Amino acid sequence: MNAFSFNQATAQHWPVPDLIAGCAAAGVGVVGLWREQVAAYGLAKTRRELDAAGLGVSTLCRGGFFNRPGWLDENRRAIAEAAALGAPVLVLVSGGLPPDSRDLAAARAHVMQAVAELAPDAEQAGVTLAVEPLHPMYAADRCVISTFEQAMAVAAPHPVGVVGVVVDTYHLWWDDRAPAQIAQAGARIASFQLADWTTPLPAGVLTGRALPGDGCLDFAPLWTAVLAAGYGAAIEIEVFNAELWQQPGDEILRRTLAAWDSVRAAPGVHGGG
Amino acid sequence: MNAFSFNQATAQHWPVPDLIAGCAAAGVGVVGLWREQVAAYGLAKTRRELDAAGLGVSTLCRGGFFNRPGWLDENRRAIAEAAALGAPVLVLVSGGLPPDSRDLAAARAHVMQAVAELAPDAEQAGVTLAVEPLHPMYAADRCVISTFEQAMAVAAPHPVGVVGVVVDTYHLWWDDRAPAQIAQAGARIASFQLADWTTPLPAGVLTGRALPGDGCLDFAPLWTAVLAAGYGAAIEIEVFNAELWQQPGDEILRRTLAAWDSVRAAPGVHGGG
Repeated sequence: MNAFSFNQATAQHWPVPDLIAGCAAAGVGVVGLWREQVAAYGLAKTRRELDAAGLGVSTLCRGGFFNRPGWLDENRRAIAEAAALGAPVLVLVSGGLPPDSRDLAAARAHVMQAVAELAPDAEQAGVTLAVEPLHPMYAADRCVISTFEQAMAVAAPHPVGVVGVVVDTYHLWWDDRAPAQIAQAGARIASFQLADWTTPLPAGVLTGRALPGDGCLDFAPLWTAVLAAGYGAAIEIEVFNAELWQQPGDEILRRTLAAWDSVRAAPGVHGGG
Repeated sequence: MNAFSFNQATAQHWPVPDLIAGCAAAGVGVVGLWREQVAAYGLAKTRRELDAAGLGVSTLCRGGFFNRPGWLDENRRAIAEAAALGAPVLVLVSGGLPPDSRDLAAARAHVMQAVAELAPDAEQAGVTLAVEPLHPMYAADRCVISTFEQAMAVAAPHPVGVVGVVVDTYHLWWDDRAPAQIAQAGARIASFQLADWTTPLPAGVLTGRALPGDGCLDFAPLWTAVLAAGYGAAIEIEVFNAELWQQPGDEILRRTLAAWDSVRAAPGVHGGG
């Protein structure tokens, strides 16, 4: 049975030491972390407190944004930070179109080149680069990799374990082709993240995601596919929601754990123990 | 060379008679109309004024919303209205998930059944039902048909000319598979519509589209594919933009014609005459 991992973005104003203490107290053994928050608290200090609390790290978010100046050095730092935290996976959000460019195909080709350039560093560090396809509504400004198939094409030239793919329900639920592709992807699946879809979307379309069960998604097709691929690592709940963020961190964790229990009990979801 | 057609939604507050007079005065010979505006002015009166001005109708928007009560009668009325206007094409926006449903596959299957039920009426009326794939960000609440491939699957069981597919750049630009599929689709392409993509998206993600040239889209890949399919009918500009709608109708038409001239002159777009 896959473990639950609490992704820090779900409680984005919760200070790192409180997050660690709160998760440990709630019996959550794995967390997903974000570089900015870790850096603000201190990388070495975060690692020490994780170890002291007995917490593991499922993923570090995020590398990528290959359309920005300095992307190579920035991503090398991200790889090193993942290794320092003991995070087996660095999530890559590939970035949108470069400024003043309309060439989507060239931007996608550049992502392939960038990942190829980073793969040796990742392999040496023992970190899997996990290419995350983002919903096509982000193709212009956040991530030109829009489908699971495109993400797999970025990963394919590299060894399994060096470059993988993220499955996030929020980004892939609409794609009727994704479940069969995921089920065939085996150990390329480096992370599985849950968030629900609600409408109307807010301006900027970033912070309108919902805890599983609060939106219109059926989690069964993607969940079944991920398990069929043999995915055995932790499943994260990662929700960007402006209203949820206003709650105290331990209240957000409580609601997230309730959502986790509820979604695992849904028909067709075989994550129940 | 494909004619230009001005879609009424681009100037949504422009009264029908002013739209007809304005287009005729500007030398625009074809318009795309919407049912609500036509009904408000009067169907027979609209047809008489179109004829008197020598204007043709490229498409009527819209049928569809097969998840709503009464969809069958409503769509039969829409087919009859298209025929009465001399519109060869009725655009179908298929509707989102039914209330309280999370079953996307069932909703898509229902669209196939609904179109099959309507096809005989459309054939008898001489109107092509044009299934429009909408951007995946609308899959929950406006249209469960998200890709060109899905729309083609809805059309495939029916004769060409009875059920076709709409290509709208705003909805399909992100899909790397679409151009090759479109180029192979021949006479299934029933309408080609242009709108540009800008960010950040506004709340509700409906009214943030832009005139061609004002956003980040390269129109060449889809335009080339549509021409490769042999599409010879009018090309519409259809833009939902809250700021643009504040302008007087003839100013919107002037800007739209300037955008049309500009996009046809772009590299790789072979619409120039």
